[in-house]
Parts: sequence; structure tokens; C-alpha cells
Amino acid sequence: MNQDNYPSRLLETAISEFAGLPGIGKKTALRLVLHLLKQDISDVKKFSSSILQLKQEIRHCSVCHNISDTGICNICSDQKRNHKILCVVENIKDVMSIENTRQYSGVYHVLGGIISPMDGTGPGDLNIKTLEDKVAGGGIEEVVLALSTTMEGDTTNFYIYRKLNKFPVTISTIARGISIGDELEYADEVTLGRSITNRTLFESSFNNGKGY
Amino acid sequence: MNQDNYPSRLLETAISEFAGLPGIGKKTALRLVLHLLKQDISDVKKFSSSILQLKQEIRHCSVCHNISDTGICNICSDQKRNHKILCVVENIKDVMSIENTRQYSGVYHVLGGIISPMDGTGPGDLNIKTLEDKVAGGGIEEVVLALSTTMEGDTTNFYIYRKLNKFPVTISTIARGISIGDELEYADEVTLGRSITNRTLFESSFNNGKGY
Repeated sequence: MNQDNYPSRLLETAISEFAGLPGIGKKTALRLVLHLLKQDISDVKKFSSSILQLKQEIRHCSVCHNISDTGICNICSDQKRNHKILCVVENIKDVMSIENTRQYSGVYHVLGGIISPMDGTGPGDLNIKTLEDKVAGGGIEEVVLALSTTMEGDTTNFYIYRKLNKFPVTISTIARGISIGDELEYADEVTLGRSITNRTLFESSFNNGKGY
Repeated sequence: MNQDNYPSRLLETAISEFAGLPGIGKKTALRLVLHLLKQDISDVKKFSSSILQLKQEIRHCSVCHNISDTGICNICSDQKRNHKILCVVENIKDVMSIENTRQYSGVYHVLGGIISPMDGTGPGDLNIKTLEDKVAGGGIEEVVLALSTTMEGDTTNFYIYRKLNKFPVTISTIARGISIGDELEYADEVTLGRSITNRTLFESSFNNGKGY
């Protein structure tokens, strides 16, 4: 579609903002914008303010770094959960995916990303120091590394392993039941649940010569 | 994905607003919202205000009802165009599609929808009265009905035809036939039948391919 003939600059601006979202092209953006244009002004205000409010007021749990409305998130403040097991994940989507399996009753540590030289994300950009401090502080028996089975995920796993293996803590990874190259968020719940139940010692996952 | 375990009410609100857009599910909405969360606050403000500003400041051309920044749109105010031919379309997307063909030099009349009892859209909700007034006012030689080839489109075509056929004006519809590049054997019977009934002189298919 020729973008030169939008009949309105305001429309063009809105379309280009929507087309900046991942997976949204110009045509889809036009469809979404026209849909919103048909709504009542109050609905458009609600839509518009929902994302701005989220951005302005969003807080992160001071314990696990997950997105939260309160200082400490529901999972970290839940005394029924096992606070001796810590599951290390990349982001909030992975927390939600694992919670949906109902196979895990420990707590989480959200890294906020994975080590990816291509994207310019180094260990310093992630919540790894706080993870180290948490483990150094004692009281944690097991750290479950639940990152995507990609090269970046494995790199991050190994980096964290090297930081933590001096502490008296068991370091495990989720079972490689998940196909190599798959993103965690797209795994089905049964596979993902099984992979947490069958987590293996991190050492065994690279010592046995098979690699990943 | 279970929607009950979003870790934040603000996040849930933003996700449900995005998931209200056509073709956007909960998972895509989460992805879009998390993408926006990663952007700078100034970018999120720009995104948020672009759609609100569009809704608040949008104007419609007083002549053709198309979206416009000015009182009369660029097409209607273009004196090089043929103001004696009026192309009736459903919405702005159709204006853009036809403009992109560069085969039409007349002007438009945007209905703002089509008659659809299922969606509760009646003739009164559309810009049909102003079309009638425009044709009654004289100076228009041809009205080209360019609506979708659906039942709703045909109903609207017929309704408009009945309103306009008392005036001395030629009423035409865009040709229904086999799409360029389509195999004959895959065309549906109604389309194929119509394309035979409405066959055109072979010469005209290449002599005046410019159409109108």
C-alpha cells in the first residue's frame, strides 16, 4: 500500500505508531486505527491511558523483579510457597507460563532478559548481581535455571552457573524435553510442566559430552 | 493462557484493552504491551497520544465524508479531477485502494459503512441522504457503486440505486468477474456466471484499459 496517499496527517501518525509494534504492518495498523476511530471517545481514552498509566505506574517486585502493583509481588509474599527453591527466568511471560503449568510451588527470579551480544545485552544489564546476593545470603537450597533453549539461554545459564557454583546450592535446569530452538512461551503446558518436574543437575547437562 | 495470574492489575488492564482490537488475542496483546513497556516513556506518550489526538481532532471532508485534516479533503478540492463522476465506497480504506490503482480520476462519496441488519447498521446510519442531495443538486453525470461483492454490499447497492434512479444520472457498478491472475477452474460459479453474462468487447479490454 502506498503510504503517500493517507488523507490525513493525524491518521498517518497514528498508523505509523501502531506499525511500530512488533508483527504489525501498515495494513493491520490502518485496520486497528480505524477500529479505534469507530469507538466512543471514552473508550479511546481508556485505551490510550491504559498503556501510559502502565508505563508510568508500573513497579517491579523488590525481591524477584517481576512486574507487580505492590512493592513485593503476590508470589514472593505467599508464605505457602517454597522459598528455598528459586526459578530463574528471562521475563514475566515465562513466570506466567510456568505458573500456568501448576507444577511449580517455589519462587522466581526474573532476569529481565538474557545475555545476547547481538542485542547488546550483557550480564550487567540483567538482574544477576541480585541473584548472586540472594543465594549468598543463604536459605536457598536449589536454583532452577528455566531459560529458553537457545544459544543465548545456554550462555546465560552457564554464566549464572559460574557465579553460583561456589555456594552450597543445587543448580538445576529444566529438562530438555523442549525442542532445541523453541521459545519457552510457546511450549505447551504439559511439556513445560514435565520439564520442570524432571529438571536435571546443571553439571550433568554439559559434562556428559552430549552438549545441549 | 490463563488470564487469572497476571501479576499486575495495570498490566491486565492494558492487555485487555489491546486484546479488544480486532485480530489481537491475549497472547499478542501481552507481547505488544511488553514491547511498549520496554520503550522510553516519551515513546509511549507519543504512541498513547497519537490515537487520542486522532480521535479528538479528526475531521471529515464536508463534501465526500472521507477522513481529512481540513474542511474539504485533497481529492474534493483538486480541480484537475473530474467532479462529474462520483464513486460511492464504504470507507476510507476503499478510497485508498482505488487511489492506488491510479485508474480513477473522479471524486468519491464515502458511506461510512454498508447496510447490515446483522450489525444493526441501517440506511439512516450511512451518508446516503447527502449522496441523494448531491445528485439532486445536479452536475453529476455518473455514480459508480464500488461496494464489496457481499450480500450487504449488494443490498446497499440496490438501496442506493432505488434512491438515485429517479435522477438523470448514469448508475454503474464496478465489474464483477474473474480476478486478474486467477485460474478459471477455481473461480466460484456465481462469479464465473456473472463474468460471462457481463462479458465485454475484447477490443475494449485493451483499448481503454484506463477505465473511467
